Amino acid sequence: MKVCKFGGTSVASAEQIKKVADIIQADPTRRIVVVSAPGKRFDGDEKVTDLLISLAEAALADKDTKGPLDKVLNRYSQIAMDLGLGSEVVAIIAADLSWRLAASKANPSLFYDQMKASGEDNSAKLVSAYLSSIGLPAEYINPLDGGMIVTSAPARVQALPESLHNLSALKDRKTISVFPGFFGFTKDGELRTFDRGGSDITGSILAAAVGADLYENFTDVDCVFAANPKVVDNPAEIEEMTYREMRELSYAGFAVLHDEALMPAFKASVPVCIKNTNNPSAPGTMIVAERDFSKRPVTGISADSGFSTLYVSKYLMNREIGFGRKLLQILEDEHISYEHIPSGIDNLSVILRSHQLTPEKEQRIVNRVKNELHADDVQLISDFSMVVLVGEGMKYTTGLAARATLAIARTGANIEMINQGSSEVSLVFGVLKQDETKILKELYSEFFAPVLA
Amino acid sequence: MKVCKFGGTSVASAEQIKKVADIIQADPTRRIVVVSAPGKRFDGDEKVTDLLISLAEAALADKDTKGPLDKVLNRYSQIAMDLGLGSEVVAIIAADLSWRLAASKANPSLFYDQMKASGEDNSAKLVSAYLSSIGLPAEYINPLDGGMIVTSAPARVQALPESLHNLSALKDRKTISVFPGFFGFTKDGELRTFDRGGSDITGSILAAAVGADLYENFTDVDCVFAANPKVVDNPAEIEEMTYREMRELSYAGFAVLHDEALMPAFKASVPVCIKNTNNPSAPGTMIVAERDFSKRPVTGISADSGFSTLYVSKYLMNREIGFGRKLLQILEDEHISYEHIPSGIDNLSVILRSHQLTPEKEQRIVNRVKNELHADDVQLISDFSMVVLVGEGMKYTTGLAARATLAIARTGANIEMINQGSSEVSLVFGVLKQDETKILKELYSEFFAPVLA
Repeated sequence: MKVCKFGGTSVASAEQIKKVADIIQADPTRRIVVVSAPGKRFDGDEKVTDLLISLAEAALADKDTKGPLDKVLNRYSQIAMDLGLGSEVVAIIAADLSWRLAASKANPSLFYDQMKASGEDNSAKLVSAYLSSIGLPAEYINPLDGGMIVTSAPARVQALPESLHNLSALKDRKTISVFPGFFGFTKDGELRTFDRGGSDITGSILAAAVGADLYENFTDVDCVFAANPKVVDNPAEIEEMTYREMRELSYAGFAVLHDEALMPAFKASVPVCIKNTNNPSAPGTMIVAERDFSKRPVTGISADSGFSTLYVSKYLMNREIGFGRKLLQILEDEHISYEHIPSGIDNLSVILRSHQLTPEKEQRIVNRVKNELHADDVQLISDFSMVVLVGEGMKYTTGLAARATLAIARTGANIEMINQGSSEVSLVFGVLKQDETKILKELYSEFFAPVLA
Repeated sequence: MKVCKFGGTSVASAEQIKKVADIIQADPTRRIVVVSAPGKRFDGDEKVTDLLISLAEAALADKDTKGPLDKVLNRYSQIAMDLGLGSEVVAIIAADLSWRLAASKANPSLFYDQMKASGEDNSAKLVSAYLSSIGLPAEYINPLDGGMIVTSAPARVQALPESLHNLSALKDRKTISVFPGFFGFTKDGELRTFDRGGSDITGSILAAAVGADLYENFTDVDCVFAANPKVVDNPAEIEEMTYREMRELSYAGFAVLHDEALMPAFKASVPVCIKNTNNPSAPGTMIVAERDFSKRPVTGISADSGFSTLYVSKYLMNREIGFGRKLLQILEDEHISYEHIPSGIDNLSVILRSHQLTPEKEQRIVNRVKNELHADDVQLISDFSMVVLVGEGMKYTTGLAARATLAIARTGANIEMINQGSSEVSLVFGVLKQDETKILKELYSEFFAPVLA
């Protein structure tokens, strides 16, 4: 049994939904379908989710909602009409939206969740209706009925373990289950949306729950590339990579799948395949637990900007038991997570994502490190980029760090930080943002240049 | 004004003490002399400090002390006789030792300190007597009279800030002050010895107290070498390095000066010179706050074994605010300090010195990390070495990491860990112990090979 998730562009129009239907029809083991809300049909188009946010804003501000509501309904009507569906499904969607708009606005956050989730929910109803209309035995599954139970506020939205048990019942259904992504319900029946990775998470949970043979994640790209195609011309396609490689790549700039979304599938050992709705015959990129990594030591190279460094120096720092722990406590008090802590003898740097900082937080952190840890020097420096080489085979390849550092040296850029730990699948370089692109290009040609015969 | 410290081999015999006198005589600004206890005169010889420890053990065990006591007295008598001194100073030393032996043994630790400290104390009396005998106006200074006040038990022995004030009076003395290294007195008048770096610390404190122009640390080597002469043939001599470079080098295998000993001089901006009692005309190695580092990017390369790695992996670790802090807390609870924390996305390694571990501690740490942090994988791996490239100029040199990693690759060894932080003067490689020596040699020839014309 396969769980297939279709992203926003895959359900953006009738034409796209027909491709989805073809894909489902082509393989009878595709029994569970997770859909996003209709996305953009063309550059400059509006996503239904964004239309819904505007609608929710208007409703909360007690403004006229007719305009924004019509925009949403028109998208669904257009799709339904182009799919040759009757008015019934559009009436259901219209009724659903009126009901949601009439709901309590006492808690604006819950109201937003209600409105946003309608994008996926009604998309699922539409896709299910279309599949039925062409003779495929499909059924829309409401996440409340299916048992997608999530944590209550103020906890971050995450599926509770009992969801896996509840949702496992889907595997025994004779019909194709069409399940909306992006949301679940608390034990008290409140609707909550997942923070990030939305529908990918739903698909991953369903794949884990039913013990799927494969979780197919349909997007609008043929595969995952070994480097950002916007920077590197025609980068190599990744046929297969491990979960760990995917995680390390997504850490710095690879955004095909939100990495956390993979967790449920990862835990249940369900392999994942990234495929293209517009080119389903392309093999895609397989994400597996283990793989043969004999071909290339480096699987991919990613790069991301937006990092800052908290540099702290203090004479005899490494003799001071508890110094690092106290420093991390100060960051924890500011709810800041960090990426790396390269250290010398008398100094250490904490690399963190800059978006977590505000001028006030920076000031508080620098002051506390100076006053409580009696540091000799404390500096917060921004505009760093991380360039990450990822590959399961790297640790078995002597001389790899030399090739990488030599390639960076050829660009004339300085390496501000190197981080390579034992048993790892990545080699991380901290560089100045201004050098990021040229380093990525040079590393790509070092490790992916075609071998001349 | 210069403060000169003479180590154990410099005062091991009459012949050596005559060299000390020549050195003092050669420069009238050498006004403060710190001495160690007489060290080894030849391979296989016994240090006076070791003889004193045997004597203290015998006394505490209520065994006959005559034999061990005679051994100590004989060393001093021999030196005094060879220096042509009368029996007076030997009588003073004999009386001192009897008095110490008769002291309370209620606290064995204090009794040990009393006995051990007599090595330096009586060495100072002897050197002072000799300097006087050849017409140099010298005076033995008792650290209690001089005001070397240290922390009380159970705190680690460290000089209290008022010591600097008290000892500053030495600069106004008309005579040459001969000061025993290695110990001080608590406010209650209890004698306590410094943990490590003994007489070097005393010299450093005196240099800071009097605001010396230079702290000369006389040893039995001409200078600090750029790499361990036991591994590398005829390594380059280091003419000058910064405190930071000295610290980073001493971290892994450079043992000319105990690094912590430099702290008082460092804080008072007193430059330090490592010189050779047996070859005082050699310029030695200057240790300064700032230096011109245009000549070579790498100042020295050190290597040390005896490191372990605590490897911890957990899916989505870097999303978990507080994970690193909790891990360090566990180590702190076991009173373990660490050196580096290289990290990937889902894993991190804590590099620490293996001598801090016992099988019980290892078990407790691994269990706590598994149970309290719910890690997926926890391993403690030993037999790592650290190889450290040190140089203030390194951060300004593009391609340096490439040269280093390429040199390591030539040896066929794998790099287990790389640590380079921003604004640092060192580049640290974690390697298997078995590869340490060949890597040190290859790095040395990469960075110190004579440039061919």
